[in-house]
Order: sequence, then C-alpha cells, then structure tokens
Amino acid sequence: MSLRSLLLICCLLTATANAQSAPRELNLMPLPAAYQMGEGQLAIDGTFTVGLTGYREPRLNGAVQRFLRTLSRETGMAFPQDCLKACVGLSVHTDHASKPVQELGEDESYSLEITAAGATLNAQTPLGTLHGLQTFLHLVQATPTGYAVPFISIQDKPRFPWRGLMVDVGRHFIPLDSLRRTLDGMEAVQLNVFHWHLSDNQGFRVESKKFPKLQSEGSDGNFYTQSEIREFIDYAHDRGIRVIPEFDVPGHCTAMFIGYPELASAPGPYQIERHWGVMDPAIDITQESSYKFLDTLFGEMAALFPDQYFHIGGDEVNGKQWDANPTIQKFKQSQKIKDNAGLQAYFNQRLLKIVTAHGKTMMGWDEILAPEIPKSVVIQSWRGQQSLADAARQGYRGLLSNGYYIDLMYPASQHYAADPLSGPAASLTAEEKQRVLGGEATMWTEYVAAENLDSRIWPRTAAIAERLWSPQEVTDRQVRDVGSMYRRLKVISTQLDSLGLTHNSQYIRDLERLSGSTDIEALKVLADVVEPVKEYTREQTAPYPATSLTPLNRLVDAVAPESDAARNFSAQVDSLLSSPTPTTIADLRASLTTWRDNDAKLQPLLQSSFLLKEDTALSTTLAQLGTTGLQALDYLEHNQPAPGDWKQSQLATLEDAKKPKSQLLLMVAPAVQRLVEGRTATK
Amino acid sequence: MSLRSLLLICCLLTATANAQSAPRELNLMPLPAAYQMGEGQLAIDGTFTVGLTGYREPRLNGAVQRFLRTLSRETGMAFPQDCLKACVGLSVHTDHASKPVQELGEDESYSLEITAAGATLNAQTPLGTLHGLQTFLHLVQATPTGYAVPFISIQDKPRFPWRGLMVDVGRHFIPLDSLRRTLDGMEAVQLNVFHWHLSDNQGFRVESKKFPKLQSEGSDGNFYTQSEIREFIDYAHDRGIRVIPEFDVPGHCTAMFIGYPELASAPGPYQIERHWGVMDPAIDITQESSYKFLDTLFGEMAALFPDQYFHIGGDEVNGKQWDANPTIQKFKQSQKIKDNAGLQAYFNQRLLKIVTAHGKTMMGWDEILAPEIPKSVVIQSWRGQQSLADAARQGYRGLLSNGYYIDLMYPASQHYAADPLSGPAASLTAEEKQRVLGGEATMWTEYVAAENLDSRIWPRTAAIAERLWSPQEVTDRQVRDVGSMYRRLKVISTQLDSLGLTHNSQYIRDLERLSGSTDIEALKVLADVVEPVKEYTREQTAPYPATSLTPLNRLVDAVAPESDAARNFSAQVDSLLSSPTPTTIADLRASLTTWRDNDAKLQPLLQSSFLLKEDTALSTTLAQLGTTGLQALDYLEHNQPAPGDWKQSQLATLEDAKKPKSQLLLMVAPAVQRLVEGRTATK
Repeated sequence: MSLRSLLLICCLLTATANAQSAPRELNLMPLPAAYQMGEGQLAIDGTFTVGLTGYREPRLNGAVQRFLRTLSRETGMAFPQDCLKACVGLSVHTDHASKPVQELGEDESYSLEITAAGATLNAQTPLGTLHGLQTFLHLVQATPTGYAVPFISIQDKPRFPWRGLMVDVGRHFIPLDSLRRTLDGMEAVQLNVFHWHLSDNQGFRVESKKFPKLQSEGSDGNFYTQSEIREFIDYAHDRGIRVIPEFDVPGHCTAMFIGYPELASAPGPYQIERHWGVMDPAIDITQESSYKFLDTLFGEMAALFPDQYFHIGGDEVNGKQWDANPTIQKFKQSQKIKDNAGLQAYFNQRLLKIVTAHGKTMMGWDEILAPEIPKSVVIQSWRGQQSLADAARQGYRGLLSNGYYIDLMYPASQHYAADPLSGPAASLTAEEKQRVLGGEATMWTEYVAAENLDSRIWPRTAAIAERLWSPQEVTDRQVRDVGSMYRRLKVISTQLDSLGLTHNSQYIRDLERLSGSTDIEALKVLADVVEPVKEYTREQTAPYPATSLTPLNRLVDAVAPESDAARNFSAQVDSLLSSPTPTTIADLRASLTTWRDNDAKLQPLLQSSFLLKEDTALSTTLAQLGTTGLQALDYLEHNQPAPGDWKQSQLATLEDAKKPKSQLLLMVAPAVQRLVEGRTATK
Repeated sequence: MSLRSLLLICCLLTATANAQSAPRELNLMPLPAAYQMGEGQLAIDGTFTVGLTGYREPRLNGAVQRFLRTLSRETGMAFPQDCLKACVGLSVHTDHASKPVQELGEDESYSLEITAAGATLNAQTPLGTLHGLQTFLHLVQATPTGYAVPFISIQDKPRFPWRGLMVDVGRHFIPLDSLRRTLDGMEAVQLNVFHWHLSDNQGFRVESKKFPKLQSEGSDGNFYTQSEIREFIDYAHDRGIRVIPEFDVPGHCTAMFIGYPELASAPGPYQIERHWGVMDPAIDITQESSYKFLDTLFGEMAALFPDQYFHIGGDEVNGKQWDANPTIQKFKQSQKIKDNAGLQAYFNQRLLKIVTAHGKTMMGWDEILAPEIPKSVVIQSWRGQQSLADAARQGYRGLLSNGYYIDLMYPASQHYAADPLSGPAASLTAEEKQRVLGGEATMWTEYVAAENLDSRIWPRTAAIAERLWSPQEVTDRQVRDVGSMYRRLKVISTQLDSLGLTHNSQYIRDLERLSGSTDIEALKVLADVVEPVKEYTREQTAPYPATSLTPLNRLVDAVAPESDAARNFSAQVDSLLSSPTPTTIADLRASLTTWRDNDAKLQPLLQSSFLLKEDTALSTTLAQLGTTGLQALDYLEHNQPAPGDWKQSQLATLEDAKKPKSQLLLMVAPAVQRLVEGRTATK
C-alpha cells in the first residue's frame, strides 16, 4: 500500500481535525480542518519549483511569484521565478475561476498532499489555491538535513465565510503601504475581508469627486485618491480578500460637516474633531437634501468599491443635536416616532433604499437593528454575543466583533476564547447558526498610527483568524490548553515578520528612539514585562488629555499589547509551585535578579528624557518585585514558611505594583504574588 | 554682549575644530570643521517649522519635507509639512544655485547657529543646505524637558571634495530600493559620490539599447532599465550625491562576452561566471571592432549618466587570454609592447580618446596608471597609500580606497585610522596634496546581497565618512582614543535605523530565520560575540566552494562585521586589570556566566537545523571561554596567582578558541586570554 493511499484512508478514518493523533505538533496557524501527518519530509532546495495546471489567471501567476519571493525570504535561497514545464516541487491544480468580484461564501477549500513523490495542491477556485500556498509556506522549516516540508495530507476549508479585520483610518490616518502590509498579513492567516472604516469625526479619508470638500476640508490632507483605492482593492483581490467600505452615519461623521455643514442637525461651523468619544453632531435626518447628498455620495462610493456589501456604520448616536433641533422634534411628533432610536430607524429605512438602489447589501453596527428593518441587512455585533444571537433568531445575518476588539489590549488567549457560536449563540438552531457569517477583529485607532499599527494587529489577530477558520472543536480544545496556540502564534509571528510586517522590528526601533541610542538593554528589560492598560482605561488614566494630535511616542505606545516574558514567567512560577526543579529555580532567580538590578542601570536614562521620566515608578517597582520574588524564592527553596508579617508587608507592596503606572501594567506582579503566597494560579 | 556675538568671537578664536574645549560631547558624525557650544537648548515641539529664504528650487522644498518626515520618525511627533510664512524654528537661507549637474569641488559649506532666538542655517548652495539640515537632525535629542537641540554655532565644510561609496552590483545584483536606502544613509553622513560598479564577470546590470544582449544574456534578468537609472540619479541629486558609473574593462567583463563573444580574446562561448576571483577572459584590444563597440556603448552610457567622471575599471587583468592569442602576440611584437601591462596601457590610451570624445573625464583603478597616460585621468587606489602618493607626485589626481574595503570585515576603527594624506602621502607638497581628492569605501559583493547589504555598509561607513569630512587633526585625535568615535557611531547607527536602513533590524530577522522562531535569545548570545573571518579568508576557509548562487543564509552572513559586545567586554577586562571595581567584576562575571551556560540552551536548536549545525563547535568553545574566564576572575578577585599548569592548559585552549570556526571568529577570546594572563592589552 502506498503512503498516499494510506494517508487517504487515514483521512477517511479521521473525518475531522485530529491534532491529538498527530505524531508531532503542526506549526500552522490557522490549524487545518483535517490533516494526517506522515513520516518523512520533502526537501526544499534550490531546485524547488511550482507548476500551475488547470484553470489559469494572472492572479495565480502573481501568487506563485509572491510565494517564491516569500520562500526566498524565509530560507535565504533563490528559486527560479518562472517554471515553463516539467516542474517538480509543488504542483498546483485549480479547477475553475472564482467570481470576478469576490463573493461571500465562495469555495475556499483546498487539499494539500506532500509525499516523497512531491507536493500537490488542489483547489476548486483560486481562493483555495491562495490559501493552500500559504499553508505550504508555513510548513517549511529548517531541519538537520536542509529546508523541508513534512509529509502530510491536508483537507482544508474555512469554518466561517466572513473572516475579517476592520481598520479605522478615520481617527488616525493610516498610509497605504501600512495597509498593504496588513493585507499581506491577512493573506498569511487566511482572513478574507478587509473592512475599511473610512470616515469618522476625526477625518473623511476618501476622495469624492462629487463632494470634494469632504476630503479637502475634512482630512488634513490625509486621504486616499480614488485611483489609490482601486489599486488597493486590486491588491486585496490578488490575495483573496474582499474590501468593504464603511461610511459611518448619521453620527460619527463630524468630518463630513466641515465642508458641508448643511448636512448636520445644528448650524455649525464645524471643525475636524481632535478628541475621542461619542460626539453630538449628527446628520439632520428630516431634510430631503440629506438623502439627496447621501444618495449621490453612496452612489459614487458604490461604484468605487465593487464588493456587494456596504457598511453604513450607524453606531453611537447620542441624539443631542436631534433633541435640540425644533424641526427634528416636530418631525418626530408628526411621524409619531417614540424616541431617537426610532428616528435612527427611520433614517436607516431611507438609507436602505438608497444602498439597495445602488445594488448593494447594507450592513451596520448593532444599532441599525430595529423592528422595521428588513432581513436583508447584515448586523455587525460590537455590543455582545447576545445581540448577535438575538439578531440571528430574528432572521438577520450577522457577524461578531465583540470579543475581537484588538484595540483594548487584551491577550490573544482572550480573543481566541470568543466564538461567534458560543454563549447565547450556542442554543441557536442550525438554520439560525447559518446566519452567523463569522467575525471581524476591529482595529480602532485612538492610540494607533502608522508606526504601531502592526504591533497592535499582529500577532494577536492570527489567533482570531484561527478561531474563525478552524473547526470549533479544534479551537475549543486549544482554549483549554493555550500552550499550543501560543507556540504556534510565535511561529506565525516570525513568518509575518519575514513578510515585512513591523510588529517586532518597530518595537526595537521605538526603544532605540526612546533611549536615543542602540543601547536599549535596560529599557527592554522593563518594556518586556509591561503591557498597556486594558479596555478603555487609557482614556481614564491619561496624565493629560490626549487628542488626535498627541504624539504616540511614549513607552505605552511602544510595548506589545501582550508580554510574552510575563506569560512565560507566570508559567514558570506555577511549574515551580507544583513541582520545583533546579532549572526552574535557577531560571526564576535569573529573571528576578535581572529585574532587581535593572532599575539602577535604567534610572539615568529615565531621568535624561522627558518621554521616559514618567516610567521612574514603574522601574523602581519592578526592582521591588525582583527583591520580593527573590526573598520568596529563598523561603520556598529552603522549605521555610515565610514569616507572616513579611508576607503581609509584601502583599501590600504587591497591591501597589498591580496598579497602572504611566498607563502600563507590570504583568509579572501577579506571579510574584503567587510566589509570596506559595500557591499556583487558579485556572 | 549677545550670546551670538560671543559665539562668533569664540569661533574666530578657535579657527578649527575644538572638540576638546566643548563642554560636553557632541553627538555628531561627522564632526563639523569648527563649532562652539553654548549653554542651553532650543525646544523642538509640535510647533516647530522650517522656513526657506534666498535661492529656491524644488530640491530644497523636497529636502525640507524629508527633513520633517525624518524628524517625525525620530521624535514620534507630527510637524506641519508646509510653511508659507512667519515660520519659526529653523530658518534656512541658501545664497545661490549649485551646478545643474553636480560637480567635483562645489561649495558644500554651511553655518548653523542655534540660540534662544531660534535656529539659522546659512549656505552658499543647496549642497551646503542639505548638509546643514542633516546636522540639525542629528543634534535633536530627548532631554528632561522635551525634544531639543543644543545652543551651538557651527561653521562647517568638508575636508575632501570626493567622499564616496562604491557598491558592486555585478557580483550580486542589488535591487533599487536597497540602493535608495543606501543613498539615504549617505546623505545622513554627508557622503557625496555614489560609485556604481555596474558590470563584472558575474553580471552586466544596465539596459543598453544599442547592445541589448548585454543585459538579456549577461544579467539573469537582473538589471536596471534606463528609466530606472535616470530616476535613481535624480534621487541621488536630490540628496547632493553624484553618481559615477563604472564599466570594468578590459578584464572583469565576462558578462559582456555572453551576448558578444566577438569582443573577447578567445572564441567562447561564454557563460555568466558563477565563481569569484580573477578570470582569464579579457577584451581583444587589437581589434578595431572592440573600440567601435566600446565607443558606441560608452557613448550611450555617457549620455545616460550625466556626471563628468566615467570609471572604466581596468583592474586585475591576468593576461592569459592575451598570451594565448597569436594575433594579440603578433600585435604586441609589431608595436614593440613589452608586456601585458603595456598592452593594457595601449588599450587605456585608446579608451581615453573615446571617453574624452564623449565629454567625460576618465577614471580607473591603480592599474590604468602607466607612463604614457595623460594627467587628466583620475586614479582610484585600491593597492595602497603608496600608489596614491606616487600618482599624486606624478601629477595625477586620485582617491584612496585601500583602507576602506568594507567587504573585508574589519572594524570601524581600522578604516577610521586610514587617511588619504597619511603614510607615504604625508610628505607630499601642498600642491601634490591638492591632487588627492578624497576616498571611497568599497562594497564588493561576493558575500553581500540585498538582505545583508545594509549591515555590511552601516554603521562602519559613517566612520569613513567622518574621516573624509572632518579636519585631519580632529579625526587623528579620535584615532588615538576611539571611545568617542564608537559612542558617536552608535548614535548615528540609531539615526540610520530610523531612516529605514536595516543593518540592525535585519540581524534580528536573520536570527529568527535561523532559529525558525522569535525565540532567538540563546542564538543571539553567541551571534553577538562573533565576527565573520577577515580579509579574504572567507574564500580560503569555505566548507564548500561558494558561487554567486550559494545562499547567504548562514550565521556568518547574519552577524555584524564588528561585535560591539566583544569590544565592550575587552574594554571591561582592561579596566579590571588596571583598576578593578566591584561593578566591573560583577559585569564580567555576568557575561562569562551567560556564555558558559548558553551552550546547553543553544545546542538543541543547533542540532535541529542544517544551517546551524556547523556552529556547534563555536558554541561549545564560547562555553569553554566562559568557564576559563570565570576561573581566571576567581584568581584575580582573590589576588591569588593562577597555577602555572592551569594557565598553560588554558592558553592552549585559548589558541584553539581564536581559530575560525564555521568562518566565524570568537571575538572575546583575546580578552579572556588577557584575564588568564593577568595583563592589559598593549596599545
């Protein structure tokens, strides 16, 4: 029996994913729907080539060229860029074309077989081919005998058809080269929707030829031209990614009112908003001229953005301008509209007609859901899983973003645990579940600009991508033991790095900038174990009111949202407390000693720079944690109970250590506390 | 008396550079010709703007925009990009235009005054303005109260008019984006000549419309189109940099013979050369058709490259093809030419007429110097300072490259010590010294490709740039105490980083690639203390014959040419041996312990990858050095003489540790040896 037939049988026997039966860990993120590993590997050397058969299109040729360029970067080897015939290595067969404009729910499946005879990638459409090429790239690794891919048989397809990332370019403008890198990263982790939040109170970022004052007055000169947008959409299409535009109305649109104050519910004049939050200005929804304006604008934008879906935002209207406008109040009474939600529902009804007339399917945030709105709209749930489940029960299609708010600085494990079909959605009927299209990570940019965009998105978004791609039983199993997820996240992070994403390299550059030199060691010791404050506490704890013009050049802007060093330290502490070994003790002692001694090295630098001065307390507290931890380690090592009053005083210090300092959290404090208390973490 | 008049008087009093009288170290590289520091600083905040007065041209507007972008990257702050009037901050005055095509010896001087009233930059020409803007950028630093530039008065101009960097794109093709980055770096350190070594045995890299088989047959498809070259020259011109093309003839041009074998002295056919070294193929210099070909080609290239100077190479012709060709031998006899050098001199005479006819000044490597050659040619000296001095005495203008061969992996201090007017040139008359135009760092690319180009050029080339810019007495003084040079090199390295150069970031990416993960700590401990083998020993010690197709993906390709960690360790050892302090002892112990313990952590990784396996001995030897050093430290700390036989056995081990392993040198071995011997380094 050939290895290949053996593999096929194995696949039949293990119809779904079978990571537990795999002989060794598969370094893939997202994990495939089903796979079976073989024994052995296929060498990747300078003779490696890729051949295309079946359906052909320029996008596939481009994908192979990018594949080879990435393979070159990952291996340092050169590969022939064009293969005319008799190619060995990876043979790619695509059955037929995908839709000219990528549609929701197209076939994205592929199968990949790697055996001694070579590698074969089969897909129904170019979308599957693109995914399969990425999977192949991620399988390449240096082995004792050379670069190679393991023998494996993969049958893969996504769990959800809508796997998105939203980037807000309204609050901070993000240049196109950063966004192109973002698409590169999305392709690598098989995300397929780029949701472009293009306008908000702080900026309108698209060139309109119909209403040029939108961008000339509302963007500080920071907007995308229509030809740039067309090129960007092509770039996304080449990577199997749809582009959904969002124009947020009737609130979150102050930037539109600067050039066109007549749209608003109060006379103006308006200025580009520099602050964050929910603002009063809102479109006057009683004026016919508002709808005429939106009809013309959305018509122009519907032609610019080919995707079927068109996002109208619709979130966070506080209604204050409506309440203060007598004409709107009169309208409300005459139409027997109960409240402002009713006003917005009226507006959305009108808007739906406009969007539909331009051939698009309307989508919006939770708030657009109202009893009268037709079932054709798609609801993006930011408020919670309950609202998503409710919508699905009422017959609406929807996607989950609550749980995927990557701007809140939560760890990957937390986002990873969120599932579009868990919690309230778990009890949906099969038919209702079908209405849950997937989810979207949301990158709101109050504290994100071009320089730190990558580090705010990656690598955490790769975990969300896996949640949306891989079978639920696979991801749920990983949630119960996040070790594998984090190991694979580290690998994909390196691969994203080699694609040119800057989440790792910019960290070093930021520390160099803060240090004014390449001598960053002491600063890095501190920076490695802190994380930015979570959720919306950055606003609440700001030392001075931050605006969109405030430089993002502090330590809190440089450090990663998630500290690997702190997570590792925490795991080592738990390992020590459950089964101490000399190695664990030595490792912990080394870390604690480094922290204890670091403050003396770092203080001169902190005092030399206005940007670092605020981190003085952070550094001294880390030193204190080092001292405390070392004492606790001594007691533990000598099996000596720590004296009660020592423990008492340390715990008080630890409470302080856990409080934010310069908007940063010392993530090692809880583990040091466990050392003091001598108890492992409760799961 | 105002601060300004005080400064002016100070300047008059200290006509040349006065680093020793400066109140604190100036973080500039190159150091200015003359400067006087004041007390105080000018704040750089979000209101900082730049105003241009006097002579205006688009290049100056572009320079200000780049200046503000760089300032943004360096500070994380946004600055208004356009200043129409009433600008405060930096006021820039340019007196008059420079030449449309930049010429050798144009005025590059500028003065920069920074006082409480603001900053003023004055220059005769845009070239001086460009330099002054760079100097201003380098002065910006984070201070306890904010970003600022110190009060200072600078009167600056270059010592040599020709301050170049040669990049060989023949042996390994270097893409234009890498070369553009190189120009950015050159601008930052005030280099003004980019010498483009465009053809060699391994490739002809320019599109010729007259002889298209040059690039179609001789480049593997890796060449620059003429429009790309024009754009690149514009990019250089915007940065005050001249572009000199080199087409190496009559040797080092096998790549030309593939499409045009009739040019060669032996029938062919020829193939793109994949090996390194001096090869036999050479142009048949007896054929009139050779001169007709070169006349047409050089005519085309002379039109493409606007600079006055045109480099014809002329180095390393071994003459074997000439010796074997009866027609050439007959010609030699009939013309009474003594030897092959004579044949080449004949060729150069003919070539000079061609180059001159196309309006250019011919330059070439040492070998073109022959008794008959007119004094108009410029000699680039790669053989040594003697040949440069000889040429100057004979009336030729020349530049020094010997001493600036950055491909040989020597430390910055060694290049820095080389001076175009030292050694044999020191005794030249003033008139003869005038003929020494400056120097050029040479980046030959046998072991350099796009990925490691930056780390092979930077930051070491900044030290060469200072040697060529700053007054000799300043640089000579720094040679005697390289501490300041290395401190400033570190600062400029960070600044180059923030321009987008990858000498630091690519190192991390390479280690990640070698590790297959972001977990690079143990590998970095080893990589930080090694350097590639020096001079031409890489060829001699290669584990397998390297060709131009050999991947540059080994540890030797990733590590920096110069180990900062080893230099610092060495300095600490000397400090300990001359005046021990507890801090020095603790620091040394920490380093030695890390090295001793690193091997155990690293070995599993080394064994897992074919690329790292070769570094096994390197790692175990570093561990041994750690152990040896710790023992030596114990003896020293306890004032105990080390036992003779222990010393003996350690010294034998140390001899082995100093030998190259996997083409890498453990740079900490000599300092550990000094610890064992208990004696400081001899200067």
